[in-house]
Amino acid sequence: MIERMVIIGLGLIGGSLGLAVKQRGLCRDVVACGRDPVKLQGAVPRGIVDRVGESWEEAVDGADLVVLATPVGVVETVLRKIAPRLSPETIITDVGSTKCSLIDAAQRVFDELPGALVPGHPIAGTEFSGYEHALADLFVDHKVILTPHAGSEPAAVARVSRLWRELGADVVEMDAQEHDRVLAATSHLPHLLAYALVKMLADRTDHQAVFDFAAGGFKDFTRVASSDPVMWRNIALANDKELGALLTDYRELLDQMIARLDSGDGDYLQQLFHDAKIARDTHLVGPR
Amino acid sequence: MIERMVIIGLGLIGGSLGLAVKQRGLCRDVVACGRDPVKLQGAVPRGIVDRVGESWEEAVDGADLVVLATPVGVVETVLRKIAPRLSPETIITDVGSTKCSLIDAAQRVFDELPGALVPGHPIAGTEFSGYEHALADLFVDHKVILTPHAGSEPAAVARVSRLWRELGADVVEMDAQEHDRVLAATSHLPHLLAYALVKMLADRTDHQAVFDFAAGGFKDFTRVASSDPVMWRNIALANDKELGALLTDYRELLDQMIARLDSGDGDYLQQLFHDAKIARDTHLVGPR
Repeated sequence: MIERMVIIGLGLIGGSLGLAVKQRGLCRDVVACGRDPVKLQGAVPRGIVDRVGESWEEAVDGADLVVLATPVGVVETVLRKIAPRLSPETIITDVGSTKCSLIDAAQRVFDELPGALVPGHPIAGTEFSGYEHALADLFVDHKVILTPHAGSEPAAVARVSRLWRELGADVVEMDAQEHDRVLAATSHLPHLLAYALVKMLADRTDHQAVFDFAAGGFKDFTRVASSDPVMWRNIALANDKELGALLTDYRELLDQMIARLDSGDGDYLQQLFHDAKIARDTHLVGPR
Repeated sequence: MIERMVIIGLGLIGGSLGLAVKQRGLCRDVVACGRDPVKLQGAVPRGIVDRVGESWEEAVDGADLVVLATPVGVVETVLRKIAPRLSPETIITDVGSTKCSLIDAAQRVFDELPGALVPGHPIAGTEFSGYEHALADLFVDHKVILTPHAGSEPAAVARVSRLWRELGADVVEMDAQEHDRVLAATSHLPHLLAYALVKMLADRTDHQAVFDFAAGGFKDFTRVASSDPVMWRNIALANDKELGALLTDYRELLDQMIARLDSGDGDYLQQLFHDAKIARDTHLVGPR
């Protein structure tokens, strides 16, 4: 049983974490902190947290676990604010979509990376934002990636890992750089591509007709373009190197396809479509 | 009641059409024709068609309605084969994803475009192929676009329109060129983009890790990349001009985004993401 867990930033992920922990009775005192405590009060009757911390300092002081669940772009500010009240025993983890940026931020805030710092990233979410959309089962059968740094204490890693497993998640560890490279490919790039397509079509004069005839395939393809723009701005900037390299590769492949389409090279296109279908059917079978 | 309806090409769409028509009792004699009559026999016990036509000529001769449901790329060959046995009373329609290519093919086969020719396109489908996946309700609440040519007889257009409405579809008419422009944007381009992304990632040495960490967003984004490669080769080639122009526009937008990402222009990215989200949430509300 965790005595006190503080969730800083109560969005979809932070809210779902609180709800899941409380429903499973894993913590005696789940406290939410955020910029606007009044807005967070609604989470208490919903069973997402036990209380809202009026003072961050008081909430963090003596906590067993602090979870940073704010947008990636403000993590450094938050760390700077809570650092003076963190005891060495307090485990710090996060749920951010980019991991090198978190470690870089912590390096700027602390003289030395805390041994109790265990960066994490649950690969779960919906296109909705805010604790109002929290789901107690959001993490069940989903992967959570932990990216301990060289000085992360094994006991802290084990504690965070156990918590996620208790919520039904499948925990894996990897290097922060590898995380950012893999996630750029599977998550960040698709988000940018979907946003770009919808933006391009929305700017057409015939956009009404275009959207009127959008079928299931288009809706699926663009679902991630309904995600929070501020959150994705932060993620894109925090992982700009990996993402920029991938976007450049992708654009080069499109150049190839444009040239082949122009020359009527159906065999090239069919082979490319075939390879993609085989890869997807092999690796991504079953319902999501 | 239709006396005899001939479906040439019994894939997902042709099969679903047969199944829907038979379940609703709209036709006395639903006949399937295809390259391989033996393979089509399984559709009879499944209630998809009444019989398989051994001879195309016999099946088409005197039919009330002939539906071309073959891949887009072979429509001209099929039309050439059945043209000698088509009576002027036999209504001809199709279900192809590109409409200018069908009209062009018909123009090459017939001296004059038949008045009984009513090109059509049901905006429905799944990533599966073959009559084995036929769904009787595939067209319910889906749009069917008819693109009559200048000489299409109003009575023929009305008959085809009524059939689709009897299957639960919402029928709209538009110009073949407009159809191809709109569908390039909402369907053909997303397919090419999804195929390209999966192909690019499949070619990476770390593709196993990449696919292992693919979450729901990635699976949705790439669902259309599990579609039939031959069908999409044909569609891409049949709509190459519209598709090429759109791909070029899209690539230019990616160039912009790469440059802005590189210069750390978060405001540009956030505005683009915001515009896309607003457009999607406004135009594509509700479940698919």
